[in-house]
Amino acid sequence: MAARNVGFIGLGIMGSRMAANLRRAGFELTVFNRTRERAEAWVAEHGGRVAASPREAAAGADAVITMVVDGAQVDEMLLGDQGAVHGAPDGALFVDMSTIAPADARRIGAALRERGHGFVDAPVTGSAPRAEDGTLTIMAGGEDADVDAAMPLLEAMGKLIVRVGGPGQGQAVKVLSNAVTAINCATIAQALVVGRREGLDLEALVQVMRAGSAASTMLDLKAEPMLRHDFTPLFKLEHMLKDVQLCLQEARGAGAGFPFAGLAGELYSAGMGRGLADQDFAAVLEVVEGLAGTRL
Amino acid sequence: MAARNVGFIGLGIMGSRMAANLRRAGFELTVFNRTRERAEAWVAEHGGRVAASPREAAAGADAVITMVVDGAQVDEMLLGDQGAVHGAPDGALFVDMSTIAPADARRIGAALRERGHGFVDAPVTGSAPRAEDGTLTIMAGGEDADVDAAMPLLEAMGKLIVRVGGPGQGQAVKVLSNAVTAINCATIAQALVVGRREGLDLEALVQVMRAGSAASTMLDLKAEPMLRHDFTPLFKLEHMLKDVQLCLQEARGAGAGFPFAGLAGELYSAGMGRGLADQDFAAVLEVVEGLAGTRL
Amino acid sequence: MAARNVGFIGLGIMGSRMAANLRRAGFELTVFNRTRERAEAWVAEHGGRVAASPREAAAGADAVITMVVDGAQVDEMLLGDQGAVHGAPDGALFVDMSTIAPADARRIGAALRERGHGFVDAPVTGSAPRAEDGTLTIMAGGEDADVDAAMPLLEAMGKLIVRVGGPGQGQAVKVLSNAVTAINCATIAQALVVGRREGLDLEALVQVMRAGSAASTMLDLKAEPMLRHDFTPLFKLEHMLKDVQLCLQEARGAGAGFPFAGLAGELYSAGMGRGLADQDFAAVLEVVEGLAGTRL
Amino acid sequence: MAARNVGFIGLGIMGSRMAANLRRAGFELTVFNRTRERAEAWVAEHGGRVAASPREAAAGADAVITMVVDGAQVDEMLLGDQGAVHGAPDGALFVDMSTIAPADARRIGAALRERGHGFVDAPVTGSAPRAEDGTLTIMAGGEDADVDAAMPLLEAMGKLIVRVGGPGQGQAVKVLSNAVTAINCATIAQALVVGRREGLDLEALVQVMRAGSAASTMLDLKAEPMLRHDFTPLFKLEHMLKDVQLCLQEARGAGAGFPFAGLAGELYSAGMGRGLADQDFAAVLEVVEGLAGTRL
Repeated sequence: MAARNVGFIGLGIMGSRMAANLRRAGFELTVFNRTRERAEAWVAEHGGRVAASPREAAAGADAVITMVVDGAQVDEMLLGDQGAVHGAPDGALFVDMSTIAPADARRIGAALRERGHGFVDAPVTGSAPRAEDGTLTIMAGGEDADVDAAMPLLEAMGKLIVRVGGPGQGQAVKVLSNAVTAINCATIAQALVVGRREGLDLEALVQVMRAGSAASTMLDLKAEPMLRHDFTPLFKLEHMLKDVQLCLQEARGAGAGFPFAGLAGELYSAGMGRGLADQDFAAVLEVVEGLAGTRL
Repeated sequence: MAARNVGFIGLGIMGSRMAANLRRAGFELTVFNRTRERAEAWVAEHGGRVAASPREAAAGADAVITMVVDGAQVDEMLLGDQGAVHGAPDGALFVDMSTIAPADARRIGAALRERGHGFVDAPVTGSAPRAEDGTLTIMAGGEDADVDAAMPLLEAMGKLIVRVGGPGQGQAVKVLSNAVTAINCATIAQALVVGRREGLDLEALVQVMRAGSAASTMLDLKAEPMLRHDFTPLFKLEHMLKDVQLCLQEARGAGAGFPFAGLAGELYSAGMGRGLADQDFAAVLEVVEGLAGTRL
Repeated sequence: MAARNVGFIGLGIMGSRMAANLRRAGFELTVFNRTRERAEAWVAEHGGRVAASPREAAAGADAVITMVVDGAQVDEMLLGDQGAVHGAPDGALFVDMSTIAPADARRIGAALRERGHGFVDAPVTGSAPRAEDGTLTIMAGGEDADVDAAMPLLEAMGKLIVRVGGPGQGQAVKVLSNAVTAINCATIAQALVVGRREGLDLEALVQVMRAGSAASTMLDLKAEPMLRHDFTPLFKLEHMLKDVQLCLQEARGAGAGFPFAGLAGELYSAGMGRGLADQDFAAVLEVVEGLAGTRL
Repeated sequence: MAARNVGFIGLGIMGSRMAANLRRAGFELTVFNRTRERAEAWVAEHGGRVAASPREAAAGADAVITMVVDGAQVDEMLLGDQGAVHGAPDGALFVDMSTIAPADARRIGAALRERGHGFVDAPVTGSAPRAEDGTLTIMAGGEDADVDAAMPLLEAMGKLIVRVGGPGQGQAVKVLSNAVTAINCATIAQALVVGRREGLDLEALVQVMRAGSAASTMLDLKAEPMLRHDFTPLFKLEHMLKDVQLCLQEARGAGAGFPFAGLAGELYSAGMGRGLADQDFAAVLEVVEGLAGTRL
């Protein structure tokens, strides 16, 4: 079965752009958004139909996609009183593209499969411009047949689609990847503070590191804003901390320790107490500066 | 004064290739190597003269370059009984391109300046092929006039030459950069072990991380060998541990803490006890596996 | 109001002994236990009445005490369908002596206060013999008037009763104290493994540390069992890990980082993966041994 | 051979008291101190003879004891131009009671044994009052016969004398014990800062921890001064950092990692940069406060 009729739930910054790409690829969309005006505006621009509830969005849909804020919202949108599961035809495919706890994804997926539906967790990386271009990276977890069925949808929204394992593992890869990002960023903050105390030319230090084996995407993206103490949020510190915690929980559930992530989590936690929740996560620099009693 | 006559001390894997590039750029070289046969073979191929001692290599030289194993050797080659300082003309320029402790570089530099010579510490990053191509990255520390004078030499050997500050700071940047590299590598080892315990498809995990904000040169270079437990040494674990220790010492001397490097150092130290000294430093994976009781 | 009639919920190893001390001090008890036989046996030995539900246990009680396994059980026993709150007279005092998340204690306390009841969270430290002797340490959090009212009850069960702050802070002190305990224990494990690799006489090492500034209760209690790899559980590793996690969550909620606890948590997490969940938490030694590749 | 004639080198705060106890126990002392006046004053009070050099102090001595500042001084006093080794009779026993690097102790011991002398490294713990009372704890490393010979001397100065292994291992135990002390102290600092942010009554927190399994000598000694920010030095932060570093070096040499000590070392290092070198090591609290952006 190829999905042609799609219920799409969540038309935020990311979701509205992702849905537009599905439309461009020829899918028929019935959309639901909490603030109904956003859904109506989207349909006015892109076509399709507005649904009054997730349940209605799922009626007659081959596939239902969710792109919302957290596990509680996915729960409500799919399994709540007016949830999509109550409207979806037998054997529909559910694809959650939000970032939620891997354990929540497994639980929700199990509930859906119990009722005969398919489920794929397919969180994304990449910001609004890449959602717009359809060049997101998507990590898909689920049963093989479900992921196969989801592929035409995912390919309309992303450029690199990676199958990462069974149900919940899309989310597990996402939070693990973000934990590594958080560690890399905190490492750079520490290196810059050490360099400052040693009296090094920090621009030169960054240039050297970027040219060699210490290079990383975080170094490319965060070193320069750190030098300027510019923490305009691209990804908020509190959200990064949330992902590190989800990663640590998931690792713990699997009986694994992750010492660097544990230590990084404590630095970002201290950032919360310093009022940095809504700053970019690169503001972890201020925690490291506090430890050293040194400002860049 | 433009240096035309150069005394070059240390014709190992790196030094022999670097000296060849100087020759190609038109400098006149007098070379010294502990094992005299290597010096003779080099001269047979590239021209120039063989010196019987560092002192003799420095006679009549505008500049003396050292590329040896550690601070003790730089000490001996420059300041020892038969050291270059005893043969060099007034106002010669000394350029040490070995990787040594920043404190040693400052001490040796001070001793040379006291006798009226210039000194630049200019360690390199990049392996033999880049030494061969003259595309090394070189981080130069020293007085401005000294670094200016060294530039034509450095440009013959490297592609990116970065001025990083005063005497000793080339070394400081080098060890700090290597400490970040060591942390990044150990972070990847931890992430892979966590992923294994969570039952993730590790190839997919690496692919996702490389495509996103978790990307790093270490991820590009070390993840795949880790998955195969292939630790053929490109840079030995014991040498990486040495650099981390030098970085921590230097940071301590500056009154700065570097928590991630401290933790990473302990993991690499445990690697020594596991007999991994001569393996590539990516073998820190085995320490992380030991902690988790899990093999990839 | 002095509490004379007490509803006591939870007659496990600790609870049964604590209730007996209340009885000895002259309180009238109505007891509830999930397994009714335990409640009947207790009453046969100590007197009082058996209740069929928490609700019934609270009927006519001046105070209701809970000593159960976790926050979910406290919730059910106090606020569930048959919960004590539905039977308690106006203005009753609730005292929870279980160890639960500080956040749960605050939430449950708020729900009770909303209905006009008092609430004190008063977790204990000390094992069965001290419960038996009435010499537990009790840390009491709550409004001053509530803690005042609870004092005669607490003094019947404990020796050292410490007022630690407002509602939930009894639990906060408990988990913070346990996190320090977990760190101290893991520190000893690391020191012993280092000492073994250095070839030290470990008995002598422990003797010296116990005689000096490195001394701790953990050193007194855990070093010797570690040397024998005897991990007969006094407090299970999985429970210690749970407390460390509760502490880290609480600290995070307060915007504070706790780096040593974060690192310790990762070691205990790795212990779960090594199958040590049901061993004494001193079995964290095996994680440290794994890291070092060395067995004591 | 029972030592009756003792050369004693180093009459500082500790050494002068230790020597006095030897005298009281009936040993004949020839003393040397860099500042000769101190030696003369000591002899005026306690008897014995003043030597003009370490060499002279060793002339005719059965045993030579050193109690100086560091390894370099032990080196000079024993092996330098005017060193005791040049004056000591064949087969004399050398006992170094200073705290120095284990590696230095092994090297110096080997040099002495090569010339037919015995060597024991016997560092002490305990402050001036315990030196005065002869109740120090002494950890003795060395060949069995040497330690046997040193026992009557050590028993005159200490209360608990522990044989800890071969040459150098007295020092190894000392620095390992001090590293555990440093970790325990930093743990308390972190717990207090977390407690402050959680709004706990810190006096109550300390009381609870001291009454339970979190208790430690550091908690007894340092929590209260931390609450008052009183860092009057009993043992300076820079000396504690030195011992942690010696421990880490020794562990590294043995191929062992010590993650908590590595992390603690970085906190104390940051303390140096905050100008806390001459404060008591409990001032590591200020580093932890800096990290949290919170003052107790």
